[in-house]
Amino acid sequence: MNALIVLAHPEPTSFNAALKDVAAATLRCLGHEVEVSDLYAEGFDPVEAPAHYTPRHDGHRFAPLAEQRHAAEAGCLPGEVQREIDRLQRADLVILQFPLWWHAQPAMLKGWFDRVFVSGGLYSSRMRYDRGYFRGKRALLSMTSGAPAGAFGPGARGGDIDTLLWPLHYSLHYMGFSLLPPFCAHGIQGHGYAYREESEFLSMLETYKADLAQRLVNLEETAPLIFPGWDDWDAEGQAKMRLTG
Amino acid sequence: MNALIVLAHPEPTSFNAALKDVAAATLRCLGHEVEVSDLYAEGFDPVEAPAHYTPRHDGHRFAPLAEQRHAAEAGCLPGEVQREIDRLQRADLVILQFPLWWHAQPAMLKGWFDRVFVSGGLYSSRMRYDRGYFRGKRALLSMTSGAPAGAFGPGARGGDIDTLLWPLHYSLHYMGFSLLPPFCAHGIQGHGYAYREESEFLSMLETYKADLAQRLVNLEETAPLIFPGWDDWDAEGQAKMRLTG
Repeated sequence: MNALIVLAHPEPTSFNAALKDVAAATLRCLGHEVEVSDLYAEGFDPVEAPAHYTPRHDGHRFAPLAEQRHAAEAGCLPGEVQREIDRLQRADLVILQFPLWWHAQPAMLKGWFDRVFVSGGLYSSRMRYDRGYFRGKRALLSMTSGAPAGAFGPGARGGDIDTLLWPLHYSLHYMGFSLLPPFCAHGIQGHGYAYREESEFLSMLETYKADLAQRLVNLEETAPLIFPGWDDWDAEGQAKMRLTG
Repeated sequence: MNALIVLAHPEPTSFNAALKDVAAATLRCLGHEVEVSDLYAEGFDPVEAPAHYTPRHDGHRFAPLAEQRHAAEAGCLPGEVQREIDRLQRADLVILQFPLWWHAQPAMLKGWFDRVFVSGGLYSSRMRYDRGYFRGKRALLSMTSGAPAGAFGPGARGGDIDTLLWPLHYSLHYMGFSLLPPFCAHGIQGHGYAYREESEFLSMLETYKADLAQRLVNLEETAPLIFPGWDDWDAEGQAKMRLTG
């Protein structure tokens, strides 16, 4: 199997980077090939903008999706976008490793969605969801958060993990990926801001690393999350009425 | 009243820019002061990164929240961050105007959250949610989407608007803002990709502009959305049991 780990953290010695290393080592130990997109280290530009497109489809008015479709058809996608697409095409498993900032992925990773999942080339009105370009591939969100695990849940202070990850999960589902249950490491704070004693905090980090490795060892026995697909919608896209009797 | 409109679209002649103009004109007509943060035009950098901090709190290891806290305390926040904070402080109403890209705001606007809502300066474990820094101010999400309005809803193909906007709403709630119901203009596509005849499409755009203006005229009669606050949580942050009888 080929795996791609997309890392979005500005600090090379961060716990996110450590989890990326654990995932890579575990997958390699299991005999898989591993590639890493280190978005910060590689200087990925997450801002979708006119300057990325040469030649322009429309030099007067910048319509992002029209430019994406044109560049995909003409074979002139921006270099770093094409590089990410090539990596995704080689991968059977994609892991997104990121810290939860403001109930979502950092701008760096949000822009990876905005720019890499190109209209036309990788999706269309007919090629999406369970008919998506990347169907047959699996994706796993691996996130860290600063709040303690006990602060999350429906109606809880930190919010519900399923709700806050819904936009990421559904976007990956849109692209055809099967979603594995997310891996969440909570209570991850910079040094000096931990809720706990330092030794207890460091021990928690080791436990999370072991948990992530175990998750990857058990990958084949892990059922994917369920999202609605074409059979669930009527012609307008609304959920079909389910007859119960 | 002072209003701030934060616009996140790369094209000055986009429908998002037009909605910004309508909102600004309407609010000024009502006698309010209006400021605009045009993130693309002003070249805002949405990527939280070490280079923004001089001097560094820790020059060896970049912990974003620790650097934010240090810079806020030392009064050396990055210039464009301080400018946005100043604008927010002057505003009684904040409108975020953006296109929905991948079930969320564009990276440009996500990074505005990441960088401008600085730890320490604008929030702490005690200063957040209904005790947040910006309490008493109101915020309104005004978004455009490419899918037709009929494709959204619980379980529907486009997803549920309340769910996909939850991370943005909850982040603003975290900062203390009261949230007005979102304004959503659906079916907004670049020229040549509309679902409808051009004349029908242009007429729809005019209707959306009028709807947004009307929403702003009726602002004082609009009830805010309800999100949980400190009275709703126990000491761990879980939703309190509600006794029904």
